[in-house]
This record gives sequence, structure tokens and C-alpha cells, in this order.
Amino acid sequence: MIVNMKREATEEQIEHVIERIKECGYQAHVIRGAERTVIGAVGSGGNRSALEALQAAPGVEDLVPISQPFKLVSTQLRSERTIVDVGGVPIGGEHWVVMAGPCSVESREQLLATARGVRDAGASILRGGAYKPRTSPYDFQGLGVEALELLREAREETGLPVVTEVMSTEDVDVVSEYADMLQVGARNMQNFPLLRRLAKVKRPVLLKRGPSATVKEWLLAAEYLLSGGNPNVVLCERGIKTFESELRNTFDLAAVALAKELTHLPVVADPSHGTGRRSVIPAMSRAAIAAGADGLMIEVHPCPERALSDGPQSLDLPAFAKLMQEIERPARTRLSNSVRA
Amino acid sequence: MIVNMKREATEEQIEHVIERIKECGYQAHVIRGAERTVIGAVGSGGNRSALEALQAAPGVEDLVPISQPFKLVSTQLRSERTIVDVGGVPIGGEHWVVMAGPCSVESREQLLATARGVRDAGASILRGGAYKPRTSPYDFQGLGVEALELLREAREETGLPVVTEVMSTEDVDVVSEYADMLQVGARNMQNFPLLRRLAKVKRPVLLKRGPSATVKEWLLAAEYLLSGGNPNVVLCERGIKTFESELRNTFDLAAVALAKELTHLPVVADPSHGTGRRSVIPAMSRAAIAAGADGLMIEVHPCPERALSDGPQSLDLPAFAKLMQEIERPARTRLSNSVRA
Amino acid sequence: MIVNMKREATEEQIEHVIERIKECGYQAHVIRGAERTVIGAVGSGGNRSALEALQAAPGVEDLVPISQPFKLVSTQLRSERTIVDVGGVPIGGEHWVVMAGPCSVESREQLLATARGVRDAGASILRGGAYKPRTSPYDFQGLGVEALELLREAREETGLPVVTEVMSTEDVDVVSEYADMLQVGARNMQNFPLLRRLAKVKRPVLLKRGPSATVKEWLLAAEYLLSGGNPNVVLCERGIKTFESELRNTFDLAAVALAKELTHLPVVADPSHGTGRRSVIPAMSRAAIAAGADGLMIEVHPCPERALSDGPQSLDLPAFAKLMQEIERPARTRLSNSVRA
Amino acid sequence: MIVNMKREATEEQIEHVIERIKECGYQAHVIRGAERTVIGAVGSGGNRSALEALQAAPGVEDLVPISQPFKLVSTQLRSERTIVDVGGVPIGGEHWVVMAGPCSVESREQLLATARGVRDAGASILRGGAYKPRTSPYDFQGLGVEALELLREAREETGLPVVTEVMSTEDVDVVSEYADMLQVGARNMQNFPLLRRLAKVKRPVLLKRGPSATVKEWLLAAEYLLSGGNPNVVLCERGIKTFESELRNTFDLAAVALAKELTHLPVVADPSHGTGRRSVIPAMSRAAIAAGADGLMIEVHPCPERALSDGPQSLDLPAFAKLMQEIERPARTRLSNSVRA
Repeated sequence: MIVNMKREATEEQIEHVIERIKECGYQAHVIRGAERTVIGAVGSGGNRSALEALQAAPGVEDLVPISQPFKLVSTQLRSERTIVDVGGVPIGGEHWVVMAGPCSVESREQLLATARGVRDAGASILRGGAYKPRTSPYDFQGLGVEALELLREAREETGLPVVTEVMSTEDVDVVSEYADMLQVGARNMQNFPLLRRLAKVKRPVLLKRGPSATVKEWLLAAEYLLSGGNPNVVLCERGIKTFESELRNTFDLAAVALAKELTHLPVVADPSHGTGRRSVIPAMSRAAIAAGADGLMIEVHPCPERALSDGPQSLDLPAFAKLMQEIERPARTRLSNSVRA
Repeated sequence: MIVNMKREATEEQIEHVIERIKECGYQAHVIRGAERTVIGAVGSGGNRSALEALQAAPGVEDLVPISQPFKLVSTQLRSERTIVDVGGVPIGGEHWVVMAGPCSVESREQLLATARGVRDAGASILRGGAYKPRTSPYDFQGLGVEALELLREAREETGLPVVTEVMSTEDVDVVSEYADMLQVGARNMQNFPLLRRLAKVKRPVLLKRGPSATVKEWLLAAEYLLSGGNPNVVLCERGIKTFESELRNTFDLAAVALAKELTHLPVVADPSHGTGRRSVIPAMSRAAIAAGADGLMIEVHPCPERALSDGPQSLDLPAFAKLMQEIERPARTRLSNSVRA
Repeated sequence: MIVNMKREATEEQIEHVIERIKECGYQAHVIRGAERTVIGAVGSGGNRSALEALQAAPGVEDLVPISQPFKLVSTQLRSERTIVDVGGVPIGGEHWVVMAGPCSVESREQLLATARGVRDAGASILRGGAYKPRTSPYDFQGLGVEALELLREAREETGLPVVTEVMSTEDVDVVSEYADMLQVGARNMQNFPLLRRLAKVKRPVLLKRGPSATVKEWLLAAEYLLSGGNPNVVLCERGIKTFESELRNTFDLAAVALAKELTHLPVVADPSHGTGRRSVIPAMSRAAIAAGADGLMIEVHPCPERALSDGPQSLDLPAFAKLMQEIERPARTRLSNSVRA
Repeated sequence: MIVNMKREATEEQIEHVIERIKECGYQAHVIRGAERTVIGAVGSGGNRSALEALQAAPGVEDLVPISQPFKLVSTQLRSERTIVDVGGVPIGGEHWVVMAGPCSVESREQLLATARGVRDAGASILRGGAYKPRTSPYDFQGLGVEALELLREAREETGLPVVTEVMSTEDVDVVSEYADMLQVGARNMQNFPLLRRLAKVKRPVLLKRGPSATVKEWLLAAEYLLSGGNPNVVLCERGIKTFESELRNTFDLAAVALAKELTHLPVVADPSHGTGRRSVIPAMSRAAIAAGADGLMIEVHPCPERALSDGPQSLDLPAFAKLMQEIERPARTRLSNSVRA
């Protein structure tokens, strides 16, 4: 940590900061510049929180952190990439996977038709919501345990492992019983009691990035899971909120590339929520893979115009099958210099 | 709801949309323009969710909502302003209140000193965190029940009612026992299981705006509380996330003015989190009141540089006392035209 | 400047950075920590740009600036507040001013009626656009020189000095002939050739904040004017672009308070563009003054529904007169503790 | 255009709006709903600006545009994709191109070494700044005409056409003399006098997206060029400003996919400015091509740590050569279902 003193800081204030740095368990290195004094707090065994409070000390302009605040998720601690096993399907490493299915589980027919369709098209994991976080209390809130039962049936029939969202600590046990991977939704990324509870389950966790979370905050949310005991975490980029309103969210693929640099955990991407617009999902699916994503999560519904949630961003089964083929299509031929000749 | 058909939409697609509008319980009014057809879905008894799914129907460009999605919180439903009683202190109406106290309850001495100080300076309600949502798992997470006990003691000594955050459905009962108002933190604004649970308690709820929540989403979160049975809700603006990084958040006072136009619920503002910078808190406190806020929530700590959380944005007791005087200071004299003479 | 080396940086890379720091005209202070090495570049006479390029040197994690990049605009260089004289009306200092008028000058009748109306209500400066930056090429682009002539006539009749926008270096001369203050629009805040040209005129400049400009970038734009020779600069906050779409922009009043801390230049605020919604303009005008703004810029039109630009955010004359009275109304009575007794 | 009347709108207000719609040259279609009245303004020959001002009329809640505001750039007007010829290199169509070179032209040696290097690695167009928009007046502002001379020399030697930025109407003539394509920088995207001037030149224009411009605003800026007479426009995504501060900008690849849907103009992407971080540029280059970009613009410098601008985001020549090979590398093998067996 670097403590940047104000230009007008007094000797007494500088001395006070040096004292506090030592009390917090660090060594203090002072650099006296032409305009101001800067003090480095060096060491690894000190109390970082206490040190950070020094920002409020008299004469301090601001504090500049030098090292990243996360540890267990960091590639600096572990250079080998983590591969998470989801009911037999590995996420991370050399391959990439597709998780597909309806936004909400609505009925037996809807779910089974979708599950068979996405499996036949090449998906490896089935997604489907049983508990739905909805902006309005008047919207469909999910079928709950009934949906979990249907997901189990779909898994038995298709062989696809299941990922589904858990919204509350109270539902963790029942969802763990049915699902192969538990999803933390974007709006719960910083629901810390939920993260602490999920750190104790024996299931992998899919951690969606919050709509206004920086990559650092996202990794610190994952740090709650790892430091609490659950090393099987998959990160999922799903778009952030920006001024651009033509699409539902701004799909931040550079965050996928950056996250893969900073953490050894697998990182997947959700172009359905990331854009909210069906017509651009194929292009963004290919882009996500090109950016290094370890997989995709895609919403599919047999009849999007009758979906109880997220119809506009759901692909129907033929569109999904087409997407699966397109993802593997090689990029367009590059213009060779000879074209100009 | 207006259904905006694509330019190239076929007659068959238009007919299909009209059919579906009727099936959803609305009447369809068709406007055929020079370039495209637009269909109005009219009526109040239909199934809005089902109607919204039409965005995914063939030939549909997009859907345009005409009426606001919230109801019970709206000034259109209730024109009289709601006044919420917090342990004897009314929020809303003609007056405004100040809620002050430490970010976290850290010790008996710290809390009691702060409580006495803010009461003497004119605060009406004591704030203090027992359960703390922290970005990093390595930061101080709050004293829990021990803090609740201390808050009760502080209330008994100072007479100030207490507001404190509840982070999980599991803690709702115990926090309700101790607190006069339960706070939903910004990161939990869309924690819907928590909102549904709080709709059933007999305590007022302070609902902080999420860092990336639009005013509409904020009001819909409040709608969860009202529609679930709790009419005593106070909204709190506390800053949103934007590109500007010089301050911790962008304090959105126009949202206070807008919210007061759209809802009858009281709206307060938190310049401590809203800016994160002690030096601008007095100016922004005055601005919040001028914008129409029904109250302020301000972080105060006897020794900010030793605070276990949010020291940089906490005022010490003398600074808080000074702020309380400044809030009431009249604005600077306006330049009269005669100055130019 | 602090150079933060990577954990894995080699001795050779550290030595290379130290050498380059010296070549750039600074002294290098090395702090070797438990995990990494940090190097401070100290001194005031060096080449900052060359130093910044070191971020690209091998082994460097990142660079952390310690001092602000602006100079002449800074309160660190000049503690006395600047007062800018606009045709006899001072901006800055103890008073605040109101600049009002139509978005665009549309006709003689429209302008004169507005000018008389705003003067009678208490405005001190007349605003009105002759050259209009419009998002679409099919929208009204302003009357140009004809509008400048009308503004001169309005000034002669009402005695109000005039502020109007200049969009291009080519128009600087003609606009300077007619206007008392030249406005740089938000979208031109970083039009550097325009700023360099305006640094040479004998008129004060009103510099609007860009919709995605940080406060630092705004102050650096002002630094172009001061360093080029024009000390008479008024800053104007007019809203930034964020995810919130209910209002046209997010009006950032904390930026006003922050700017007044960082610079000695006067800072005014434009609640018309800042919110885009007529109903909240009075509240936000009062809030801006309370936040410390040195003045307001407000759009007024005799018949907003026939305005050729920005009608929805324009006040009509009676609404403006009412606003002028409200700005001076004292804030609502504070709830005393005795209320609870 | 749909005019959404307030619930409490009177008959008289409704009649007034209907009258005005007719005066503006449209037909009015009235839909009277259970809660409110909605009025459609239909027709294509009316005065859209005048119609939009109706938002300010009494009784009007808001206006909802139904058709896009741009015309000539739209795929609705022209379904065939535009191919822009830049000194013999086509942009758009089946192929994609790479434009590469230094941020700023700094010297003969630097430019020629870079030009040869990027040509040998497979780039088709040379980029290099002669006039530099710099946030601070104390940073290197470009060599101007001297740089243009050097670019001409580099073109002659390497055969690569040249793209370079023009910042001011005053420089358009001289830059047109030397460059094969004129670049409008992000901060000038809405410099309308510059756009109007460039609409009259015989050179193609590369139009960078502004850091806070929506896709619609970007297309309207292009509309200035097309409606003014220049059909040869290439759009360039280069990142937008958001709350995420770990990278310089948020690279918005969905905007590329969306723009290609809305316009027939070619769309390229600049991952150097789009991310500002060298390590993620290869991944984002591949992602941009996968998203459908018609080309890339990449900053290359022989010695980034001595670059006078944008060193941290510049690739050196070996890194650029490696990138060119990677772009064409097929995506990783997809996980087949058999992996789970």
C-alpha cells in the first residue's frame, strides 16, 4: 500500500502515519519528493483493513493499493488452470461446453422438448430456472420444487447434467439435491450470506457477474466461495449496465479475457442475457469462444413468444441447432495483400 | 402496450399478433402507417407478462410499454404522501430527519460515544451496522447479535430509534427484535426472497437503491414490499456506479426528485455512500434537502482513521455537529441585478 | 509517479526502470517489499509524458500517478477564487447568477419575448443558441449570424449580457464580435483545436462538461484554455451519461462540489440539460445552489411545445418566474427532537 | 410516432395534440384505452422535429418513436453492403483487413520501421497520427504536416495506403492531400462542422464511435456524412466508458454485430483503444473478427516504452506478427458429448 500525503501535510501528520503503519504490522518506507511525501507500507503479515482506514487520517490525500485484494482465485497463487467437473462434464481446460435450456421451467412438455432438442444439437449441460428473480412482483416467479423434479426427469432422460439458480440460503439444500451445479444469479453476486452458505456445499457453483460489478469485485465474490471451502467455481460473464440502451446489457468480452488472465477458474459467457437480442446471439457466441471463454450459456425455448420469461432473447430449437453449427465455422478468409495487386 | 411491427411484417404475422393480444385478455387497435403497422393492446384486466412475450413473435420489431409497471407505490394510485413512523419519529411529510451513526458497530465505547454525539448535534435516528456486506471475505464482517445488543443499549440511553441492516432471511427475526427499522442494503435491493420475507414483518423497511438500479427497478423492489403486505417503506438514494471514479459513486439527486414525483413513499439520501469523500458531504447534504429529500443518512465515527469500515467517508463528531448547523444555513445571497449597475 | 513492478520482475528489469526514470529527469527511490518492488519517481522538472510510457516497459505492472495532471486551474497553485466578468456581471465569489433563455434563437419575437421575461424574473445573463449541435442532420441547425444579430438586439433592449455557443474554430471571430461569453458545448469539451483557438480570444469561455468526461478530464480541458492564455473560464456541469434512462442525463452535483475543491474557477450548473425533464428542474436548481454552484443555466421558451429544439426541458415564462422565487425559499423546517416528545 | 397522453389528460388537451399532429403533416389515429389515450402520428412526409416538440404539450406523458431516425445509412434503405475502397484496399464485403501502425508518428525511423514491419506481418493499411487529440495540453500534440510527409514516404516505400486523423475543419484540405482515408476520432464523433466538411471531400472517412455514443447516435453521425454527399464511410468501434476501470474502455463487440444489422456500412474494431491493455489485444482481435467486424485497427510501436503516446496499449513488432498468425488460428476443439462417456 502506498500512502500519498497531502502537499500541505505536516511533519507531525507524517510521523503519525508512519506510527500507524507500524502498529498495523507493516514497515514504512518514506519518499520525500519535491512536492509531497509518499509512504510505502511494506510487508505481508499486517492487517490490511486497519491499514486502509488510514485514508481517513489527517494529512492523507489517498491510499494506493499495490497488490490485488484477492488471493485463492489468483493465478499468482495457482498457475494451473482449474477444471470443474459438472456431473461428468469438465468445464475449463482445452475444451469448451455449451449449457442450454429455457429461462424458466414452465411445464413437463416444454422442458423435455427443450432438453432433447439442445442435447441433439450438441449441448452438454441443461439449464432451466426453478426459482426466478423477477424485477416485478407481478411476473412469473418460477415453479420451485416442481421444476426441480422436472429437471431431474430431463436429466434422466437425456443424460445432461443440470445447472439451476438458487436464490436463498433456505433453498440451498433442496436445490443441491437436484442440481449438478448451483447458479448464483447476477443480482445475488454480492449476496454474501448465500455465498458463505454455498462455500459449504459439495456442488460446483456458477457465479454470474453482477450488472455493475467490476472484474475485481467478481473475483472477490468467488474468493468468498474458495476461502469458505468450495474450490469448484465457474465464473459467468452476462453483460453489464451501461448507457447503451439498444441492447439489454453491454456484453463485456474483454472481461472474459481479463478474468482468464487474473484467475485460474474457468470463465464462461452468456450471450442471451449479455445482449437480450436474439439476432446478435450467434455472432456473440462465436466472439465469446474467440475471446477465450470456456463455454456458453444460452437460452432456448420451443416457442419463445409464449415463454413466461425472457422470450425475446430465447432461441427456438432450429435457431439453436443452427447456432451450434455456426460456432465451429471458421472465420472469414482474411484479405491477402495480393488482393490489392 | 404498443406492438411495433417490422416494416416487412406479413399480413399473417399481423393477424397472429392480433389473435395473441386477444388471447392475453386485451383489445387490439391497429394503426396502419405509411411504413409499418403498429398495434395497440388496450385494457387493464389482461395478462401483462404473456403480452410482453409477444416481443418474440415473428414480424414484431419491439414492444413499447405505455403504463408504468408498478402500482401500489405509485402516486397515480395514492396521491397522499406516506409518512412512516420509526420508533416515534415520522419520516416523510413536512419535515426531514437525520439518521446518523457509525458504519459498523465496533465496540460499546465507540457506539455509545457516537450515539450521544449525534443526538446532541440533532440527529433523530441512530444508524449502525451489525451485519456488514463486505466486498472482500477478508474484511470485518460485523459483530452480529453482539452489535444488536449494543444498539439496544444505545437506544435506551439516548432515546434514538435504531435502523440497522439485515442481510439474510435467516436474520430477519432477530434483527426485528432489536431494530426500529430494517435496512435493505444496496446490493440486496433485488434480493427478492429477502424482500418477500420483509413484506411480512411489522417493522418499517429502509430500501437502499442498488448501484445499477434504475428508478423504475427501485420502485418495483418497493412494490414487492407493499404488495406483500408492508406499507411502511422508506427509499434511500446512495449513489450509482458510473464511469466517474474520482468519487466512490455518483450521487443521483435527480433520482430523489423523480422518485418523489412517481411515488408517495418517503425518499431519503445517503451522501456518505453517495460520494465516499468526507469533504463534499456537507455540500451534498444541503443539496439533498434542497432536492426534496425527506431525510439524510450520514456515517459518523469518533475516530475515522481507526474505523473498521468506511473510515474515509465518515465524519468525526465535531464535523457532524458543524454539518448539522450548515444544513440549515440559508443559501448564499443571490446576485441582484443592481450589482451590474 | 509510482512504478509498481510485477511480482516476477527481474533485477535487470528493475535496473532498467531506474535508469529510464533518471533519463526522464527524475530521481528514483526503490522500495523492496515482501512480494514486489515499487519505485518512486521524484522531482518536478522531468518529462512526465516520457515517464508515463514506462508503463509499457518489461516487468512493469502499472504506474500510479501521485500528483494531479493539471496545474494552472488548480487550487494548489492559486488559492484565491477566480471571478469572471461577463459583460459586467461577475460569476464566482459570494453571489450566484442565473443565465436563461431559449435553447435556439428561432425568431425576433421569440427571442425578445424570452429575453424580457427572464430579465423581469431576475436572470442576469441571456443564453440562446445560434449554432446548434444536433444529433441528427435532419434537425434544425440554428440561424447562425442572423441569430447573433438578434442576440445583440436583445442585449441592447434588456441590458443582459449574452452567452452563446461556438462550434467551430471558423466561427470564433464572428461569435466573439456579438457575444459576451463564448460557450463550448458538451460534445466539444475535448475539441482541442477549438480550445486552443479560444485560449487566444478576449472573451470569457463557458466550458460545459462532456457527457462522459471525468472531473479530471474537464479540468484538463480548462487547462488548455488557461495555459493558452485565457484565464476567464467558467465550468458548467450539465449531466453525464449513465445507465439511468428515465432522465436524459444524470445530473452530477457532487462533481460541482468536487470541482470547486480542485479548482479556483467558477462552476455553474445546467439543470435543463442535466435532467431533460421540466418537472424536476426547480428542485435541481435549488440543489445546485445548495451544492455550491456559482450559477445556473436554464432553458426558457415562450411556447415549449413549438420549440425547434429541447422543448421538453424548457420552462415557459411563468414557470421560470416561479422557479426564480423558489430558489430563494428556505429549506423545509427540520424535525426537532421535541417532535417525538 | 406514438403520443402517450397522461392519465389525467383532458379532452381539450387530446384535441390539441390531434390538431398539432395534423399541422405537422401527419395523420392522427386515436386509441382510447381503459386508463389513458394514446395517439399515433402516421405518415412519412411530415415535419418530425416539430412533431417531437409535442412532448412539451400539456397533457402529454411522453413520445415514443416508432421508426429509426437515420435513413441513408440504414439497411432498410439499401440492403446491399457498402464496400469502401481505401487506396485500392476494399473494406467491407467478404474479407477483413488489418490497419496497423503507431499511435503517433514520432520520427522517420520509427514510422518506416513500423510500416515495414506491419506490412511484412500482413497488415493492409498503415495508421499513424499526425494531429493528436490529447487530454492534457502538456502532452505531445503530434508533428502535424511533418508527420503527413513521413506517412507519404512510408506509403511510397511499403505500398500501404494510409489512414490518419483530422481534428479540425482547417486541416481537412492538407490531410486529404496526404491520406487515403481520413479518421474522425472518438471525441470528434459529434463535431458536426467537421462532419459537414468531410461530407464534401473525395476521401473515405473512418468514423470512430464516441466513448459515450449509443449505436444510434453513431449512425446519425454517419448520416451527416452520407446526407452531405460522402457515401464512403467506415465505422470503427473503439470502446465505451463504463464503471469498469480495470481496462481503459469497455470494448463493445455487440455494438459491432448490432451496427452490421442496422447499417450497410462496413464496421471495423480497434482493440487497442477498446481495451488499453496489451495482454488482451490478441483475444479481443479474434473476438472482433468472430463478431463480424470487417477489419481491425491496431497500434504497433517498435519500442512501446518510449512511445510518445499510448505505449501501454501498443504491440511491438514481434507481438503484432504473432497476433496476425493467431487471428487465423481455429477456435479450440469443442467438447464432444463422448467426453462424458
